Parts: sequence; C-alpha cells; structure tokens
Amino acid sequence: MKSNIKTVLKRYKALVDNFLRSYISKDTEIPETLRRAMEYSLMAGGKRIRPILCIVWSQIFGEVIENVLPFACGIELIHTYSLIHDDLPAMDDDDLRRGVPTNHKVFGEAIAILAGDALLTDSFYLMLSSNVDLDRVISALKEIIHAVGPRGMVGGQVMDMELTGTLKCNIDKLKKMHSLKTGVFIEACCTSGAYLAGASEKDISRARKYGKKIGLAFQIADDILDVIGDEQKIGKPVGSDQKQKKITYPSIVGLKKSKELGWDAVCKGIEALASYDGEHIVFLKELAKYIMERTE
Amino acid sequence: MKSNIKTVLKRYKALVDNFLRSYISKDTEIPETLRRAMEYSLMAGGKRIRPILCIVWSQIFGEVIENVLPFACGIELIHTYSLIHDDLPAMDDDDLRRGVPTNHKVFGEAIAILAGDALLTDSFYLMLSSNVDLDRVISALKEIIHAVGPRGMVGGQVMDMELTGTLKCNIDKLKKMHSLKTGVFIEACCTSGAYLAGASEKDISRARKYGKKIGLAFQIADDILDVIGDEQKIGKPVGSDQKQKKITYPSIVGLKKSKELGWDAVCKGIEALASYDGEHIVFLKELAKYIMERTE
Repeated sequence: MKSNIKTVLKRYKALVDNFLRSYISKDTEIPETLRRAMEYSLMAGGKRIRPILCIVWSQIFGEVIENVLPFACGIELIHTYSLIHDDLPAMDDDDLRRGVPTNHKVFGEAIAILAGDALLTDSFYLMLSSNVDLDRVISALKEIIHAVGPRGMVGGQVMDMELTGTLKCNIDKLKKMHSLKTGVFIEACCTSGAYLAGASEKDISRARKYGKKIGLAFQIADDILDVIGDEQKIGKPVGSDQKQKKITYPSIVGLKKSKELGWDAVCKGIEALASYDGEHIVFLKELAKYIMERTE
Repeated sequence: MKSNIKTVLKRYKALVDNFLRSYISKDTEIPETLRRAMEYSLMAGGKRIRPILCIVWSQIFGEVIENVLPFACGIELIHTYSLIHDDLPAMDDDDLRRGVPTNHKVFGEAIAILAGDALLTDSFYLMLSSNVDLDRVISALKEIIHAVGPRGMVGGQVMDMELTGTLKCNIDKLKKMHSLKTGVFIEACCTSGAYLAGASEKDISRARKYGKKIGLAFQIADDILDVIGDEQKIGKPVGSDQKQKKITYPSIVGLKKSKELGWDAVCKGIEALASYDGEHIVFLKELAKYIMERTE
C-alpha cells in the first residue's frame, strides 16, 4: 500500500509540476533575473502536498482535475513564497532548502524578497483563472486568503518568532502557533477543493476536520524529522530547530509523546472520512498515514 | 481652483482613512505586534491618490462610493506593502518615510517583511468584499494583479535595482522601468474603478489613457521633488536618489526637460477626458495638474 500511495502522489505531482513549468518557464514579460528566481524556488522539487489535497477534495465531489489545476497551482505559489521569505537572513536565516541553496543565497536578499512578493501576487491570478463557477472560486479563494494572511500563516510566523528562545511556552501556545503557521493553510487546501466542486456545507466541514487533523500531523512530523531525520533526505541540517531555540513538539512534550500526538491526529483525520468511500478516499486515508511515516 | 482640489482630496482621503482605520485598528485575530506594524505604515498619512482614482473613475460611470470603498482601500494596502518592502535594508535602505521612521526601523526587519506580506494578502480579501457584481470585481482585480505583480510593479522594482549605478541607461529603459514601477499601477487604479462600475470597453480605454499619462507625470514629479523638494514637506531627505545613484528623469534628461515631459503628460491625460463632463471630470483634470504642482 505504501508503494501505491507513492505512485499516486507521483502522478499528481507530475501534473502540478507540468502546469507550474509552463506557467513560469517562458514568460518574457517578467524581467529575466526575477523570472529565474521565481522558477528556482518553484521548481526546486517540492512534494506538492497542498495542491494535491485541493485537487483530490475537488475530485471527491465530482470536479475534474483540469478545471481546478490553476487554483491548486496558485496554492503552491503561496507555499513557495512563504518558504523564500521564511528562509531570509532577517527570519530563519537558512542556507539550505530541499538540498539546494536557499533563494537569497543564490539571487541575493532583494531579489528573494521580490520573488516572494511576485509569487504571492501571481498566485491570485492563477486561482482566479480556474475554470469553475465564479461563486465557488470566490468561496475557495476567501478560505485561502484567510489561512495565509495575518490571521493565519503570517500571524503564525510572528508568533513563532516571538516564542523562539523564550521559556514561557506551553502546549496550548505551541498548538495555536502551529495551527496558524501550518494547520489552517493545509485545512484551507482541503476546504477550497471542496468549495471548487460545489460541495455542501456538511461535506465542507468534513474536509475541514480532515485538513485540520492532518495539518497538525504534518507539523508534528516536521518537528520530529528535524530531530531524527536523515540530513540527505530532508535536504537541510537536522537539529536546526534546536540550534535556533525554536519551540517544537519534541522540545515541549518530548519525542515519544510527539509521535503519539501525531498518530492520534492521523487517526482523527481518517475518522472524518468515515461516511465516504471510493478511490480518492482510500488515497486520503493513505496520505494521512504517509504524513507520519515519511522520511523526507 | 487649487484650494478646491485640496478640499475634495481631503474629503475623499477622510473616507479612505476611516475605512482603513476600522479595518486595522481593533482586529484581535491578528497577533498584536503584527497588527501594530501593519497599522503603523497604513495610517502614516498617505495622500491616498490611488484609492481616490479608483473611486472617482467608478463614480463617473454611476457607481456609489460605499460599494467600491473596500476595493479602493485594498489598493492602498498594496501600495503600503510596496513601500514597506522598498524601504528594507536589502532594497533602498531608507530610514524615513513621510517624516517618520520606516517600518523596519521601528519593528525590525522580520516584522516589516511580514507586515508587508500580510497587507498584500489581505488586500485581496478587501477587494473581493466589494459590493458590486462579481464579474466586475474579477475584471478589476485582474487589472490590479497584473499591474502590481512580476509583469508590473515588482518587475519594475527589479529593473530599478539593475539600472541603479549603471551608466548604460537611456530614456527608453528609464520609461519602461518607471512605467512598470509606478505607471501601470496608477493606470490600473483608474481602469479598475471603471470596471467596477461596468463601464464600456471604450470608456475603459479612456480611463487607461488618463491613468497612463498621469502615472508618468506622477513619477516624473517624484523624481523632481527628490532634487528640488522641501525635506520637511516630502518627509525624507532630498537628494537621496542621487546619493543612491538611482536612474531618474532629472539624471537622464535634466531638470528643465523633466518638467516639460511631466507637463506634456498632464496635458495628454486631460485630453483623454475630452468626451466627458461633470464634477468628477473637473476633479480629474485638476488632479492631473496638481500632480505636477504638488510640493509633497
């Protein structure tokens, strides 16, 4: 089953990669330095989990991939911009990402900031170009905007910075920070897909529950990988969270308890799918488990 | 007449300021440091020319202010984000803006980057909240996105950086850079207003011509003010362009020719309004002249 999930992920990833490549590889309207900086991070080999979640949740309610692919790829532009800005010297000051030098290490700080700004701006153009009913696009878009703005991802990044190095953190603050920083975006990937397919409120709340739980598992797994991962596989030095005195699940509750919490979230995510069946549901269940099992 | 334009501008500015204040001043969902950083730059006393252009062009074709105010204010969020990021140490490294310390000088670089990101993201939420037909909102939004993304403002900023300090610049490159950096955004403020009001293609092309010309005048005037302006009034040191070896109109064609080019653009902008009349048109004509006459 594990090899199966990898095969399906690979197939979806190829679709996303192709779309992104044709979006960025030959746009002569963009100054070349900027285009190359955007392309560098966009095509640096991400797993494309976020757009895949959006696509699959739209498929569950009958939408076809081609119609939602621009929206899903817009989501990946947002994810990429957030990584470029997070890596900046003024932020996490990371030199490596996915095994290659970070954007500012190659193009300099100014271009890295601007490449992030450009990707964030363009993401909205891609999302608006989706070939589905306009009302649905707007509902999906509002989910994403709320998740990645100051009340979501950007706010979580500020909380993360404020908690880093402090000793006054508890599990509740950690949960809140992680939820804002990673969880709500992954949740919105699922709900936006459901919105794009015109799903009912009941179905959307199930997509939300699934997304919330696997978003939590995803972040816990990332924290764990930073402690016990293989440097070659995760593409950056292990132990960097500890070095930077970041607040993480292992630092607050220890490694064993972190794994328990992660698997508990996976189970609850799978539970949210109880009233559905079909190949896409099987995929989502496998994906939930894969999140905790992955080594990269 | 000059005092009249100032009175009307003040009235519009008050509407924009009130909306922006209620948007940002009490949002407890945003981490407080981030909210304060966003508010600091958003309420630092801008002239609000961009949202005002959007509002007035929508009024010309019969739209009411209340319906387009969220869209117009979204535009001001984008303008504010661009100023915060432009001022960063990695970019123009400016300490003063509108007479007060720049965002990163008060909140630090990381928060300044994130406040910019947050404003850019939220701008789309505000723009989508406009109370007009969805098709019109999307057309207006696509104009703005194209104008401020990698094929517009962000691209212009990259060109500006690449031209700074070089000796290989000519008037054509300067025009292209300024058009991308400032012109197309001001143009899009006008066309988006017209789109929001459901204007015809012919009317939109006139809004575009007016916007293009006053956008050019606006940038030339800014370049001139940097040479001959009053430090107290413009809120930052004069001569900073020259100090940074920026490519500007005065540096390429001299001060006298720059003024001529600016006034020529103003006249052409006014010409584009020839087939209309009414109080809003009178205002737009006065505004075009005010752009070259202003001292701040």
